[in-house]
Amino acid sequence: MFKEALQEVVDGTEGGIAGLLMDADGITVESYTREGAEIDIATVGMELSAVLKDIARATEQLDTGSMREVAIQADKLTTLVRAVTREYFVALALSPEGNFGKGRFMLRLAQPRLVAALE
Amino acid sequence: MFKEALQEVVDGTEGGIAGLLMDADGITVESYTREGAEIDIATVGMELSAVLKDIARATEQLDTGSMREVAIQADKLTTLVRAVTREYFVALALSPEGNFGKGRFMLRLAQPRLVAALE
Repeated sequence: MFKEALQEVVDGTEGGIAGLLMDADGITVESYTREGAEIDIATVGMELSAVLKDIARATEQLDTGSMREVAIQADKLTTLVRAVTREYFVALALSPEGNFGKGRFMLRLAQPRLVAALE
Repeated sequence: MFKEALQEVVDGTEGGIAGLLMDADGITVESYTREGAEIDIATVGMELSAVLKDIARATEQLDTGSMREVAIQADKLTTLVRAVTREYFVALALSPEGNFGKGRFMLRLAQPRLVAALE
């Protein structure tokens, strides 16, 4: 169920490399990596968790409400994260040349299914 | 010089609220807030600095190269950050209904001018 949703997001995004459903501590619930891709998406999740915690703290301090989406573009990898619930996050890794807007759209599209499956 | 560049970014983005040029410690070099906007952009910068440091550490750990852009969408505020140099960042705060894509574009457009002025 989770894997199918992640696969749809990754394969549906030009340049999509891997997808991850993780908890707030960065522990992988499910992941999907496109065939032939060389990425350890679980490690990406672990590294992201510290970032997400800092963002949660910052948004609380600034009283800007809950975090919905985070996008990080580095030279070699773009990472999109979307809060599924308060406890779970879905992440998409794509190449820097990948379709950023389509990735955001695919994550939004997947959210209700992921929420339903987590409940 | 910096102020004019920030004003162009903020006023040129639908929903743009404030712009900030800051160093890696979150200290404001220059800022511009649209008239009537109620936001303390310097505080946003301070809160962002911890996030940016974590992201720098994560991108280093993951060997994904330098961070170029970060976007954080919370319920009440969207924040876009772009690395100008290794030491300086430009940030744009916009309303959640603001034009995200235009904001990214305006930050990219401003970068060469900011780099030139910082050197």
